[in-house]
Amino acid sequence: MPDFRFAVAVMPKPGILDPQGRAVEQSLGHLDVDGVRDVRVGRRVELTVQAPAEEQARAVATRLAEELFSNPLVETYALELLR
Amino acid sequence: MPDFRFAVAVMPKPGILDPQGRAVEQSLGHLDVDGVRDVRVGRRVELTVQAPAEEQARAVATRLAEELFSNPLVETYALELLR
Repeated sequence: MPDFRFAVAVMPKPGILDPQGRAVEQSLGHLDVDGVRDVRVGRRVELTVQAPAEEQARAVATRLAEELFSNPLVETYALELLR
Repeated sequence: MPDFRFAVAVMPKPGILDPQGRAVEQSLGHLDVDGVRDVRVGRRVELTVQAPAEEQARAVATRLAEELFSNPLVETYALELLR
C-alpha cells in the first residue's frame, strides 16, 4: 500500500486570544524589528498515512486533525498533501 | 507600504527526539487508527510584515524565523509567502 505524507496546520481561530502571538509581538521591540504585526502561533503536525489510495489516507488524516490535533472550539485546521 | 503575510513552519530536525510526536503515535491505538507513522509535531507562526517590497519583508521574516521562532540546533524552518 502506498504512503501519503500530510501536513496539518492548526491555528487559533480569528478573535481567539493567542498568548504566544502576543509574546512574540512584545519581543520584537527588543530585537529592533519594525513593521511586524498580527502574529499568530499554532502547530504543524506532519504524518505518514499508509492507505490504498489518497482518498482513504486523507480521511484518516482529517479524522486525526479533527479529533486529536485540534480543538474545533478555538482552532481551525488545514490539511496539505506533501509531495 | 504593502503588507506581506508569511507562514513559518518550524519542525524538529530529523533524528531529534520529538516527544509530542511519540505521544500522538501512542494515542492512535486508543482511536483505533492503523497505518499512521512518522508523526512529527512542530510550530506554525503566521505574521504580517510591512515593507517596501517582498525582498525586504522576506529578510525580516527570515531573521525572526532564525532568531525568535526556531532553535537552529534542533529545529529547521521553512518560510512560505501567503497570497
